[in-house]
Amino acid sequence: MKLSLSEIALAVEGELKGDGNRTVSDAAPFELAAEEHITWAEGKNFLKRLHESRAGAVIVPKQFPEQNASIPLIFAENPRLAFAKAKKLFHPPREPEAFISPKAHVGEDFICGEQVHISHFVSIGDRVRMGNRVRIHPSAVIEDEVHIGDDTEICANVTIRSRCIIGSRVIINAGTVIGSEGFGLVPEGETYVRIPQTGIVQIDDDAEIGALNTIDRATFAKTWIQKGVKTDNLVHIAHNVTVGENTILVAQVGIAGSSKIGKHVILAGQSAVSDHAEIGDYAVIGPCSGVAKSVPKGAVVSGAPDMPHKLWLKVQKIIPRLPDLKKKISELEKRIQKIEEK
Amino acid sequence: MKLSLSEIALAVEGELKGDGNRTVSDAAPFELAAEEHITWAEGKNFLKRLHESRAGAVIVPKQFPEQNASIPLIFAENPRLAFAKAKKLFHPPREPEAFISPKAHVGEDFICGEQVHISHFVSIGDRVRMGNRVRIHPSAVIEDEVHIGDDTEICANVTIRSRCIIGSRVIINAGTVIGSEGFGLVPEGETYVRIPQTGIVQIDDDAEIGALNTIDRATFAKTWIQKGVKTDNLVHIAHNVTVGENTILVAQVGIAGSSKIGKHVILAGQSAVSDHAEIGDYAVIGPCSGVAKSVPKGAVVSGAPDMPHKLWLKVQKIIPRLPDLKKKISELEKRIQKIEEK
Amino acid sequence: MKLSLSEIALAVEGELKGDGNRTVSDAAPFELAAEEHITWAEGKNFLKRLHESRAGAVIVPKQFPEQNASIPLIFAENPRLAFAKAKKLFHPPREPEAFISPKAHVGEDFICGEQVHISHFVSIGDRVRMGNRVRIHPSAVIEDEVHIGDDTEICANVTIRSRCIIGSRVIINAGTVIGSEGFGLVPEGETYVRIPQTGIVQIDDDAEIGALNTIDRATFAKTWIQKGVKTDNLVHIAHNVTVGENTILVAQVGIAGSSKIGKHVILAGQSAVSDHAEIGDYAVIGPCSGVAKSVPKGAVVSGAPDMPHKLWLKVQKIIPRLPDLKKKISELEKRIQKIEEK
Repeated sequence: MKLSLSEIALAVEGELKGDGNRTVSDAAPFELAAEEHITWAEGKNFLKRLHESRAGAVIVPKQFPEQNASIPLIFAENPRLAFAKAKKLFHPPREPEAFISPKAHVGEDFICGEQVHISHFVSIGDRVRMGNRVRIHPSAVIEDEVHIGDDTEICANVTIRSRCIIGSRVIINAGTVIGSEGFGLVPEGETYVRIPQTGIVQIDDDAEIGALNTIDRATFAKTWIQKGVKTDNLVHIAHNVTVGENTILVAQVGIAGSSKIGKHVILAGQSAVSDHAEIGDYAVIGPCSGVAKSVPKGAVVSGAPDMPHKLWLKVQKIIPRLPDLKKKISELEKRIQKIEEK
Repeated sequence: MKLSLSEIALAVEGELKGDGNRTVSDAAPFELAAEEHITWAEGKNFLKRLHESRAGAVIVPKQFPEQNASIPLIFAENPRLAFAKAKKLFHPPREPEAFISPKAHVGEDFICGEQVHISHFVSIGDRVRMGNRVRIHPSAVIEDEVHIGDDTEICANVTIRSRCIIGSRVIINAGTVIGSEGFGLVPEGETYVRIPQTGIVQIDDDAEIGALNTIDRATFAKTWIQKGVKTDNLVHIAHNVTVGENTILVAQVGIAGSSKIGKHVILAGQSAVSDHAEIGDYAVIGPCSGVAKSVPKGAVVSGAPDMPHKLWLKVQKIIPRLPDLKKKISELEKRIQKIEEK
Repeated sequence: MKLSLSEIALAVEGELKGDGNRTVSDAAPFELAAEEHITWAEGKNFLKRLHESRAGAVIVPKQFPEQNASIPLIFAENPRLAFAKAKKLFHPPREPEAFISPKAHVGEDFICGEQVHISHFVSIGDRVRMGNRVRIHPSAVIEDEVHIGDDTEICANVTIRSRCIIGSRVIINAGTVIGSEGFGLVPEGETYVRIPQTGIVQIDDDAEIGALNTIDRATFAKTWIQKGVKTDNLVHIAHNVTVGENTILVAQVGIAGSSKIGKHVILAGQSAVSDHAEIGDYAVIGPCSGVAKSVPKGAVVSGAPDMPHKLWLKVQKIIPRLPDLKKKISELEKRIQKIEEK
């Protein structure tokens, strides 16, 4: 696909300086971009190397001083965002072709919209409903009474257990398990009784779930992934958790039962949230951190247990110096003793 | 399903005060319970709000002073356990209907009991045996010579590799891999030689394995998950590990090769056990902890490396104060110097 | 299978003392070895118990002083390695029989070599190519334009997404996802725009990938797993990462985007590497460690953030003594005060 620089400038809300009729056929990073690519530059290091670029055009910051560049420039408020949008223009999501594989299994009372694509060896339970342009990849298992909105993509080998509700424009990456039994056990002597988990998982519109995630169904009511949440791979979300709108869960994060994560929170890789915790809106949790209780709105915390990130940075510098500090304390003690003995 | 309060009281071993003929149709938590539900209350906060409940009946502690409550009460030794049992009455495990999908593959010399349910796109290898009322969900893969007991449920997209032995009343949740090659490597110059892993995984009766677990087969003999073990999601159990009876492994726990975990142990979320370690019976390992060697019977430990939990609580309070302590030490040094210079 | 001791000695490059015509039928560890087994002994504890062994033969270190042992001995440079090789003799990889299941789906323009085995419910996309003796287990999903070399094994329920390149003699264990979308998001106000991930994953010859791994495709170019890399289970490798030759990633390791891991590195269990980090060749990262930036060639580091392992060992001994140190500091302060008040 070829697009003219004018078309791209318009789509990314940038201002073009240069030949608008010139075309490029893909977006590529600075180092890799050739004549047929558009790229972007931001930060001193890249901007001062602008003349080295072999790209067909470069997206630069709005306030970048034009220097009679020999290369067409698109000035944008946020060059990285404009670049992402430009790349999306060249790689639009494929519209699925209407197809239900004869090698799939579809249960009773299936209701579905137009242009639904159900691939080979997909198993669809009874009374499942889905909207338009849903794409289900091979070997996915959709159990009874699951509801799926429009334009949602369920990747290969995904399992969605009974009665879960998936919104529109949702992507669930390969191998993920939605709606497994929550881990709700009550001790009885030496053994445990499992409380039947009769709730569901609800995933709202525009959420994107990574590969090999586990999102457990609620004991009652629902485990709730709200609009626009993005999860990376191997993330665990326990029963009755709520994850607020546009929150990001990076790889290998674990959230224990009944916790409430606010909106627009970032949980960095391998961090963990204890059960019944509350994380306020816009909070940021550092990598490998462990949140034991609650984090206020907008706070930036790190460590296990968590502390303010700035404090944690200081602490992290002292920890490798603990052997020195210990020696210093012994030395001070000797000096005091000497004084005392005088 | 409707059950009378007398039936429920009998089943949960509680004592009913109120109309035994009254019926309810499900069990629900305090806040959600309506007239058709039974609920439970324990702890001051809930018990003092008993009059607010709209439930059809409430399970309360045995020693709770009856106050001419307008609502039927069931007095129980352990209200939470009684509630779990009541909920189980309303949600009994479904008995599978005898069914082998024509869309499944069943290998040679398959021996199975009655009422076995094998769903679509299940692949069963050669010489597999299973007992009565086993349920295999879609796209599960059961390799050659696997043995499965009675009343066991294998969820969708699970893989059970050859020769593994699964007991009765076991549940293996979706996407889990049982019997993969153990990670046994011997360096040879710059590369590694893999020791063939010829052992198996044995999972005993009443164990429940979470979603997306990996339990590796032994190098020799067996990796052994004993009776009543419960694992949460994304748990890793390496080759030759033994997990003792009724032990609980919370989400994202990892256990390295040849370690022995005692019975009735709790490993909290994201905790890790080193290889060849021993964890004594009834020990508790805190979340995100790392056990390097061994933990004695009944010990409660936390941290990485682990220390007694009570000590760890003190240490955790001091760590964020390390910058203050460092400053204090510098200050003391100056005061000593001043004294010395006199 | 029976093999004579001469055959084994030859294959493992050892020197036999004893009856070369004697045969054994498997390799077993010291404690389990019976007359029909070969075993190995290394280290004082085992070597002094040599006379207790009921094995048919024992592999011992080259420099082991012969003591008119009643049991045949094979002297080897590296007994453990020789034992691994002996065990491999008895358990050679099965050659696949040429078979494409009528219950599989194979897309258009499939090109494959000889003796390829494609099991039931495997889904192969369009324009896929694979070499000789490739084995694909049930319910694996191989998307469009994937290329696979010779003698490679793809286990059950694996997903390999479009255009990824897999070398020869590669093993991908069950449930793993190769080539899922990288986690590349650009904020736009309250929401996020996902940068289309148009790169691939390339896995080179002799790499072995554990069960339930996630290896994301690159934003551009490739995520690259080089020759001989071995990963354990539940490992996450983000977009644009390079993992160098013969590097080992133990269970539950996570590597964030664009990091470069050198060759022959060991990342111990649950350790994490931040994005854009560099780990030098032959470095070793301790368990549960978090590498924030870079680790020089050959360094051995531990902790989060990481520090030299030897320093970390000292620090780990002091951390549980922090409450004592704090008390000591208070005590010293009082003694100083007393002196000052004189």
